[in-house]
Amino acid sequence: MALITLLTDFGLQDGFPAVMKGVIWNITPQVLIVDISHGISPQQVMQAALLLGRCAPYFPSGTIHVGVVDPGVGTSRRAIAAQLGEQFFVGPDNGLITLLLERAENNHQEISFVKLDKPAFWLPDVSKTFHGRDIFAPVAAYLAMGISLEQIGSTMSDPKRLTIPQPRRTTHGWLGQVIYIDHFGNLSTNIQAKDLESSTAVMTTIKGVQISGMATAFGEYPSDKPIVLIDSSGALAISVVNGSAAKLLNSKVGDQVEVLIKI
Amino acid sequence: MALITLLTDFGLQDGFPAVMKGVIWNITPQVLIVDISHGISPQQVMQAALLLGRCAPYFPSGTIHVGVVDPGVGTSRRAIAAQLGEQFFVGPDNGLITLLLERAENNHQEISFVKLDKPAFWLPDVSKTFHGRDIFAPVAAYLAMGISLEQIGSTMSDPKRLTIPQPRRTTHGWLGQVIYIDHFGNLSTNIQAKDLESSTAVMTTIKGVQISGMATAFGEYPSDKPIVLIDSSGALAISVVNGSAAKLLNSKVGDQVEVLIKI
Amino acid sequence: MALITLLTDFGLQDGFPAVMKGVIWNITPQVLIVDISHGISPQQVMQAALLLGRCAPYFPSGTIHVGVVDPGVGTSRRAIAAQLGEQFFVGPDNGLITLLLERAENNHQEISFVKLDKPAFWLPDVSKTFHGRDIFAPVAAYLAMGISLEQIGSTMSDPKRLTIPQPRRTTHGWLGQVIYIDHFGNLSTNIQAKDLESSTAVMTTIKGVQISGMATAFGEYPSDKPIVLIDSSGALAISVVNGSAAKLLNSKVGDQVEVLIKI
Repeated sequence: MALITLLTDFGLQDGFPAVMKGVIWNITPQVLIVDISHGISPQQVMQAALLLGRCAPYFPSGTIHVGVVDPGVGTSRRAIAAQLGEQFFVGPDNGLITLLLERAENNHQEISFVKLDKPAFWLPDVSKTFHGRDIFAPVAAYLAMGISLEQIGSTMSDPKRLTIPQPRRTTHGWLGQVIYIDHFGNLSTNIQAKDLESSTAVMTTIKGVQISGMATAFGEYPSDKPIVLIDSSGALAISVVNGSAAKLLNSKVGDQVEVLIKI
Repeated sequence: MALITLLTDFGLQDGFPAVMKGVIWNITPQVLIVDISHGISPQQVMQAALLLGRCAPYFPSGTIHVGVVDPGVGTSRRAIAAQLGEQFFVGPDNGLITLLLERAENNHQEISFVKLDKPAFWLPDVSKTFHGRDIFAPVAAYLAMGISLEQIGSTMSDPKRLTIPQPRRTTHGWLGQVIYIDHFGNLSTNIQAKDLESSTAVMTTIKGVQISGMATAFGEYPSDKPIVLIDSSGALAISVVNGSAAKLLNSKVGDQVEVLIKI
Repeated sequence: MALITLLTDFGLQDGFPAVMKGVIWNITPQVLIVDISHGISPQQVMQAALLLGRCAPYFPSGTIHVGVVDPGVGTSRRAIAAQLGEQFFVGPDNGLITLLLERAENNHQEISFVKLDKPAFWLPDVSKTFHGRDIFAPVAAYLAMGISLEQIGSTMSDPKRLTIPQPRRTTHGWLGQVIYIDHFGNLSTNIQAKDLESSTAVMTTIKGVQISGMATAFGEYPSDKPIVLIDSSGALAISVVNGSAAKLLNSKVGDQVEVLIKI
């Protein structure tokens, strides 16, 4: 059975994700649909791209990700569908796919894009403000039914990419930044476990606070001090056991994080 | 496969919608269940009726909508099931069906109602406070299995309707009101695109603020000014690009909206 | 078709529950997955245990409940799977199962536990912070496929239990406490309908406020006074019609509730 995921900034209050599911199941009931999140901050394409990059690897081969964080809806921004390795994406051409694309490139996997320009695969009436319902949901449903990318749109090769902030190697470590804050208040950075290789963080500095060493699990530390650990996405993160690092440090996305390492 | 939707004011925190799904799948696992919303403001029947009216047309023929915004639970208010054209409804008799009923009437479709008075189709123990679990979920499951309305209740013909506020034609346009505010802060009015017919809004006034012309898409305008557009439900709406019209205009449901049109 | 429920403190914003679903469906697509709640307050094991105890009885025989409120993740706390009567549990060994276990014991049903110590049934890379994804989701998927408890772990017999606060019989009634507050602000106590037997509450006192008698349904009372009723979980509860008892009484979990009864 095909699997479609939904990732939007629509919230859960107003029925927008439900309507997308209705549209999909109206075309084919033979599809599982799962919500990745509808809690992206309005119009925050970067946040959605990072979240999609973290979640997608855990979904089966063939999964179709529908991402609708779409501040340009109704303008000339393109609507696209893509194959990115073993998975698919449907949504606006605004960089939501950036991490999936990089991963497929790094793995030398099959990549192809089409511009969605065939209204036969859309709802009959297309609004100016809800392409998730009118274009992306039906296109995903047809892909789930086995319609090919080439049938559903016209080949293109220049999708938009976001510039994901990269950490910088320093003399004694790395200089990065907070790029994602989850609902626990954990501060996930753009410094990856693989950047540290066999080294370990000796001292991490964020907003003037120095945190020494690295923890291996939440449960081993007092609950009022920030700790540094490798989080479940493989990133260096600052956390507070049973608390919120975001609150304790008054931190937000973009805050600088400096790590001294010992090899 | 049958499809059941759930629309309640139960929130997602306390497991109430999950329990309804457990009850349904305990009776028949051969049914898809989708949440329309569990974020209706407590006891706001009108808000739920409007949302159901907006969402239902996008669901397949045969869909069974279970609506449980039910301030009268446990009193003498009736529990009903209904066929409204090609779809079904199960819930309290408090007007939740108003827009589905009007649409079916306008389309001259089949309409029938039953009062739920046959405990054989309910859970054995019926609480005074959670008919969503004890009556509506099992009745929806039996309908999904193919039990007919006539088997599941006793015919009735006088369901309660809500009085949906109607816009008024003025000499030079329309006088309406805000009837739904979504989580982006978009202000949806009771003035419909079809009311405007071939005309266009020249000037829209809300809370003393005048907005000239109509926009066609969010992405084309600066992000600190309100714009007027036809939203995805087909209603005239006031929005702020990348912002909240509700916040900018300090607006709430019921606020008057005046539109001058040019034919 | 097997049914898996998810109960966590992960929230819906960051894709954590979705990733668990992806992991499960990657192992077997032949399983229904339902969210009980992802809105447990961070690390509140007691709240989750109570909610699971309330919801589980409404799910079919064979349901596999995955509970991940897990402040000890990554420490030496055990990971377990259990059969508790006709249903199963997968999660940390921290007492989440307390009410399911008590019910199975009271009903003299089959009970068995295993410690999850066989990495063949986990994801290849196990993080220190997200066992919901790396251990519990895949184990639940394998159980849903028919793998037995004995295959998936090593038998154990001493699961951790929480001490659920018990009400105390007084000369003229019961002394209990608020143990769960739902999103409506209803105050559910640990005094059960069955404790009252054939008696009725004559006077209930909470935070110095006396409430006389018992109501049978929300809809029958004015909306600014607290009422006492038996809620849908079978507990004595304090509610405010169309309002929040929690707000009106400024009440929180643990507040003492005294009931005078008349036999």
